[in-house]
Amino acid sequence: MLEPFDAVDVIRVKRDGGTVSEAELRWLVDAYTRGYVTDPQMAAFAMAVFLRGMSRDEIRVLTDAMIASGERMSFASLSKVTVDKHSTGGVGDKITLPLAPLVASFGVAVPQLSGRGLGHTGGTLDKLESIPGWRAALTNDELFAQLEDVGAVICAAGSGLAPADKKLYALRDVTGTVNAIPLIASSIMSKKIAEGTDSLVLDVKFGSGAFMQDYEQARELAATMVALGVDSGVRTTALLTDMNTPLGRAIGNANEVRESVEVLAGGGPADVRELTIALASEMLALAGLPDADVARALDGGRAMDTWRRMIRAQGGDPDAQLPLPRETHTILASESGVMTRLDAMSVGVAAWRLGAGRARADDAVVFAAGIDLHVKPGELVQAGQPLMTLSADDAGRFPRAVEALHGAWDIASGADPRTFVSAPLVRDRISEE
Amino acid sequence: MLEPFDAVDVIRVKRDGGTVSEAELRWLVDAYTRGYVTDPQMAAFAMAVFLRGMSRDEIRVLTDAMIASGERMSFASLSKVTVDKHSTGGVGDKITLPLAPLVASFGVAVPQLSGRGLGHTGGTLDKLESIPGWRAALTNDELFAQLEDVGAVICAAGSGLAPADKKLYALRDVTGTVNAIPLIASSIMSKKIAEGTDSLVLDVKFGSGAFMQDYEQARELAATMVALGVDSGVRTTALLTDMNTPLGRAIGNANEVRESVEVLAGGGPADVRELTIALASEMLALAGLPDADVARALDGGRAMDTWRRMIRAQGGDPDAQLPLPRETHTILASESGVMTRLDAMSVGVAAWRLGAGRARADDAVVFAAGIDLHVKPGELVQAGQPLMTLSADDAGRFPRAVEALHGAWDIASGADPRTFVSAPLVRDRISEE
Repeated sequence: MLEPFDAVDVIRVKRDGGTVSEAELRWLVDAYTRGYVTDPQMAAFAMAVFLRGMSRDEIRVLTDAMIASGERMSFASLSKVTVDKHSTGGVGDKITLPLAPLVASFGVAVPQLSGRGLGHTGGTLDKLESIPGWRAALTNDELFAQLEDVGAVICAAGSGLAPADKKLYALRDVTGTVNAIPLIASSIMSKKIAEGTDSLVLDVKFGSGAFMQDYEQARELAATMVALGVDSGVRTTALLTDMNTPLGRAIGNANEVRESVEVLAGGGPADVRELTIALASEMLALAGLPDADVARALDGGRAMDTWRRMIRAQGGDPDAQLPLPRETHTILASESGVMTRLDAMSVGVAAWRLGAGRARADDAVVFAAGIDLHVKPGELVQAGQPLMTLSADDAGRFPRAVEALHGAWDIASGADPRTFVSAPLVRDRISEE
Repeated sequence: MLEPFDAVDVIRVKRDGGTVSEAELRWLVDAYTRGYVTDPQMAAFAMAVFLRGMSRDEIRVLTDAMIASGERMSFASLSKVTVDKHSTGGVGDKITLPLAPLVASFGVAVPQLSGRGLGHTGGTLDKLESIPGWRAALTNDELFAQLEDVGAVICAAGSGLAPADKKLYALRDVTGTVNAIPLIASSIMSKKIAEGTDSLVLDVKFGSGAFMQDYEQARELAATMVALGVDSGVRTTALLTDMNTPLGRAIGNANEVRESVEVLAGGGPADVRELTIALASEMLALAGLPDADVARALDGGRAMDTWRRMIRAQGGDPDAQLPLPRETHTILASESGVMTRLDAMSVGVAAWRLGAGRARADDAVVFAAGIDLHVKPGELVQAGQPLMTLSADDAGRFPRAVEALHGAWDIASGADPRTFVSAPLVRDRISEE
């Protein structure tokens, strides 16, 4: 094959702050997927993109080229409209679990092709695999049948979607080029667009436990992804949500399933319920049901029914006992007062060290490992009362987890919890309407 | 081996515009040489250095780490002081050939460990290899004996010097990260310092045929390299010299040897003689002979004697017929007037296309291929007179060479050559005295 471009020329254009042409960018992604453009060349290009940025057009072409590197799915044969959600990931973020059955209970198809956790953020599939019998891998036929029948599916994404992204993501991970907005946006959106959903709601998190710690950067990422979705014909909106504090009271795998079931039963922590309802309302609005009574679907048991059918359809027993930890360690408050801060990143790292997360893609997670929070910001605590319980299969895990939690919270003595004002969980909404 | 640092952390520091610590930088170079830090990681780091720069301290440590990756030579056992010269490379730059014997004729040792050409710039070893019998490879014992006896040696650098630089240069070449001043400076200076010379004169070229086209950038490179030399205990000065016009009238290999011998005989083109004398004076001043009568050594035959002994010591016959081309093609002037511009890069590319240079490191060069200039800027030419003669072993080479020469010169009709003011060849001198 005669190559129409030279990789060094393309790298130089971006290095010098120029705009890479559509033909060059499509060639670069294709030639990288074929192995003609090498990993070192792509690493240099990724660093140049990190430091020089990309125009909206370049990001659109990059995304499109990554989609073109693999297969595309289509849900056009379904009798229902499809709507998908993607979260940029956080600590205690189990929202997909109650959300998918809740939205599906309104007759909408929710194909949640999900991944596993890496580092301090958990993965949706890891959480669900703590349910005995549940399996993440579905054939395309099984996926379509379950969408038609139950409406909600949470399963592993096939490896045929956007293989260029898979290769590039692994490279970015080892070359310090993960946190570039054009690369994050094209990575997320190439997979979501290749999946063929009609509509998409993005939960873009900011704050200590998020991918993007800075609010303005998270906002730019959200706007970039919404633009990409719209440019590709996918109705897309984004919520910017606070990830300075862990979501809910459970951080881990099995305990997050337990908390999700509480929300599906109409209870659960206020923040998990609030975000589940906010995202469900966005999704249903995009699906043509702007007036759906989402809270009632949770309180009335309709979402729970769909959850149970969804779990059963994938081999799981919704009534089975979830794994329990062999060892627990409780941290007590050393002073009395109102908790004013609980750092999401520290809690995420501690849960990871307890065994709830993995350091490498082929590590196993411990389903029963994690953290249960007894006190959250805005709540009163007395000295000597339990603040949180750490769970693991091996007591040797506790010291390094406790170390990660040093300085992770503030307690204001003598404060009145009624005067505590928490930051809004949903800070903004981005759309192109 | 337990690694003390993480490559991604080091990349991030430079990516975000910070200063990489001495320990991190030494580790990075060592781990890259060992293969623990991978090519994609080093490519991302090189691009970050390209766009973020490096402090003087960082460049010093990087250079030192590259020196430490291999062996170091020492000329301390010689009875003479050593002085070396390095040129950043240009079109028609054969100065090393007359310069080394000229300086050595004053009793100074001149170990010129040289390289081969790549792209449009020629290599000193390629030029000398056009002399029948001459060989570039010497053992260390041969090198020392010849320095003691003849004083001048031009030979191939051993592969044991700065292997980290060799590996990094090959990587930069394919990742668009060649032209970063910290990387160029550390690459050149790590090899020169590892060679163990007492003093060093740098010929840093600017203009169309140079590595650095921009004068200010070339100046910054020169200042960076002089600082590096001084910081490492090598007396170093630099001349900034104009490379907008080819040096001399011969561009190729065998024809450049012929022109060098003319200079050694007291003749030759004025610019080649001027630069040879300027660099020799700098080198001899550093060697403690600031008043050496350099012009007389050329005119009186002393430099020529040393040249002949140097060529013979390496197996060459200084009286042998040099290779002649099979085909020549002469370009005639289409108008009369004074030549006001002759573009070095165009002439360099044309000579390369004629076979005088190589595109890949393992290509062979054609010794008799190249260009002889009959008219240079400031000289009068009549329409129909020869401007230049192209030489090659295959007439099929001419069309693409002629193509490279399109627009390469300007002729001002009716101008008086006495009014032509040429730019100074040596534009500035940099030292840290």
